[in-house]
Amino acid sequence: MTIYNALYAQSGGVTAVINASACGVIQTARLSKDKIGKVYAARNGIIGALTEDLIDTSLESDADIAALRHTPAGAFGSCRHKLGSIEKHRAQYERLIEVFSAHNIRYFFYNGGGDSQDTANKVSQLSQSLGYPITCIGIPKTIDNDLPFTDNSPGFGSVAKYVAVSIREAGLDVASMALTSTKVFILEVMGRHAGWIAASSGLAAEHEGEAPHIILFPEIPFAPEAFLKRVDECVKKYGHCAIVVSEGVHNQDGSFISESGLVDAFGHKQLGGVAPVIAKLVKDNLGYKYHWALSDYLQRSARHIASKTDVEQAYALGKAAVELALAGKNAIMPIIVRDQGEKYQWSIGEAPLEKVANVEVSMPRDYITKDGFHITDACRRYLSPLISGEDYPPYQNGLPKYVKLKNVAVEKKLEKTFEI
Amino acid sequence: MTIYNALYAQSGGVTAVINASACGVIQTARLSKDKIGKVYAARNGIIGALTEDLIDTSLESDADIAALRHTPAGAFGSCRHKLGSIEKHRAQYERLIEVFSAHNIRYFFYNGGGDSQDTANKVSQLSQSLGYPITCIGIPKTIDNDLPFTDNSPGFGSVAKYVAVSIREAGLDVASMALTSTKVFILEVMGRHAGWIAASSGLAAEHEGEAPHIILFPEIPFAPEAFLKRVDECVKKYGHCAIVVSEGVHNQDGSFISESGLVDAFGHKQLGGVAPVIAKLVKDNLGYKYHWALSDYLQRSARHIASKTDVEQAYALGKAAVELALAGKNAIMPIIVRDQGEKYQWSIGEAPLEKVANVEVSMPRDYITKDGFHITDACRRYLSPLISGEDYPPYQNGLPKYVKLKNVAVEKKLEKTFEI
Repeated sequence: MTIYNALYAQSGGVTAVINASACGVIQTARLSKDKIGKVYAARNGIIGALTEDLIDTSLESDADIAALRHTPAGAFGSCRHKLGSIEKHRAQYERLIEVFSAHNIRYFFYNGGGDSQDTANKVSQLSQSLGYPITCIGIPKTIDNDLPFTDNSPGFGSVAKYVAVSIREAGLDVASMALTSTKVFILEVMGRHAGWIAASSGLAAEHEGEAPHIILFPEIPFAPEAFLKRVDECVKKYGHCAIVVSEGVHNQDGSFISESGLVDAFGHKQLGGVAPVIAKLVKDNLGYKYHWALSDYLQRSARHIASKTDVEQAYALGKAAVELALAGKNAIMPIIVRDQGEKYQWSIGEAPLEKVANVEVSMPRDYITKDGFHITDACRRYLSPLISGEDYPPYQNGLPKYVKLKNVAVEKKLEKTFEI
Repeated sequence: MTIYNALYAQSGGVTAVINASACGVIQTARLSKDKIGKVYAARNGIIGALTEDLIDTSLESDADIAALRHTPAGAFGSCRHKLGSIEKHRAQYERLIEVFSAHNIRYFFYNGGGDSQDTANKVSQLSQSLGYPITCIGIPKTIDNDLPFTDNSPGFGSVAKYVAVSIREAGLDVASMALTSTKVFILEVMGRHAGWIAASSGLAAEHEGEAPHIILFPEIPFAPEAFLKRVDECVKKYGHCAIVVSEGVHNQDGSFISESGLVDAFGHKQLGGVAPVIAKLVKDNLGYKYHWALSDYLQRSARHIASKTDVEQAYALGKAAVELALAGKNAIMPIIVRDQGEKYQWSIGEAPLEKVANVEVSMPRDYITKDGFHITDACRRYLSPLISGEDYPPYQNGLPKYVKLKNVAVEKKLEKTFEI
């Protein structure tokens, strides 16, 4: 078997565990030096591939590559850049082939969400469409948990754990102080289109009266009267009310609530989040003292409280991507397959990229209670294993010791540059 | 030695480790049953003491009391209620004596910040002022880290660790994505009067270019031009800029920045936090895409990432309070004393309540760099040991297993009720 190089790229919003997938790719490739030469990484995702800005991961020590498993965010940089169709944007694909060819790259591993799998699918067709022999395997990643076929998307489980842990802790805080202080607490979480992350907060409410008491989903148009009634009932019954709201919650007319509330001193609308708007609604109508929090990037980078299941799956998918490529597969994405048994067990399967690309899986309606304010037992059964287990990073000086790679650039071989 | 009961109360904003102090008090008292009968806890702090709403902690199992050590927030409830002077509010103090007397209480342990130590001091004088023999020991607690004499205040070290970990993680996220996405990230943290918490984020910046790049302190009046210049330099140099801002940052005229920016649709000022105001300033002047986060209660309840040093000190102070009381001390607060050596070592000392009460310690100016945007090495040397070590709680179903006490009420003995 002739030895070719591989290219690995990270795409889209980064997560607490995307580097664990990178670790899986690179460690597995290092065990197969008779087949894969060097693993290059594209700096800043596909942009690095187009601009021939490649990183030579073979210059990183085994220890540093191993440390990727516990390091959040994108070690090689990521980007939001979607390749268009081959018909309309042929130059981009031809450029990719030039770069691949110049660096003897015959394996491409693209680690991203739905949009990225669409790109991966197009790249996988380059043998047919442009005559360059490339093996392309997608590696799933997205905190949005909206990829089809796979049981869940790496990155999601760790956000889910962060959110559930955070609302449990903040809920206890509010409960302690409610008699004379804050009675309503609101935590805003990510999820513009689907309520998976908001839903996962519901795992913290294992017993009557525990936080969160109310969850607001993008799937359920916001009904202020029913919401305020529920808040009031909750405060009267438990003395306080802890609420988790998805950033994607919208009004009955479809407009985002985050866009409806605040204007700056000049009257311009302020995209300040939905939590303060909900908080003000509570204050104006019920008069309760409130506090609110907005986790933003903290939730998706929180490697310190990552789900062990999530880390293991992210790593396994990276490893599987290399194994599948070496087995001669192309145009597929390894996925997590959930066994049917009572106990959560999973294995690696595969899905064709052409069927993965651009499909968004939404949350089943029966995962949300009829009243629209919490999760059902079915949802709990699905979500609970995904936050299972802790996988703490090492610490030094009281802080997690995350690796910073050398990220040495590969010498450019092409004369032409490429404008993005 | 005659056996008397003890009363323990939590006061003011709760923390990730105040229950560790409660654990220290109760476990130590349980070892001294020949001297201390029952440990009662006041429900919701001093309000429970005034309303004779007491909890019998002797009905809690040893395992549940031990679990307080890893459970955040206030297990018995806390409150914001300051007793006035004995001269003006004599009825409150007489009521306390009635409650103490009815329940054979001769030891009072009051766990709180500066205001609470003022109350503790007044209670400690009841023997003299109102003729009731009481031993009163204050136990320090405040995330604000503004108590005098003690090296630091329990609760602070854990917030400090949370904030430093969070900005390190979010900083890596922003760095990964900066080429095509967010370039400026702002994390708002607590600290209305002092910048201790904001300062602690600076520990994450151990090497050139690491987050946070800029810290905004309440001690330094906000200078928009210098700030914007620094942000721009940072983005040009590192590709991105991670900022930590204290909620207490104010303008040159002394007004809070959080109050200066947003109005709702009716023109009312919106207390929406300082982060969105700073974000908008950056956007309007430099045009960089931004994101911001507001940790709010998440930071002070984050027991999952508590500082081991903080937990140990909180416990030791609770334990010491009981030992000091049994040694016949009164009107004091145990404190943390930092040894002078290179390596961080600490022991328990004591400070008189009358000198602790109502004194706020602010951050030395030489802990902030001359330009006002970061911490100095002296600050780093002071702060670093306080976030040292991890003390993870046990987990069940992927979530921290925090204890919920039974909190059984003690039968009331007084006929009169008391209006707060």
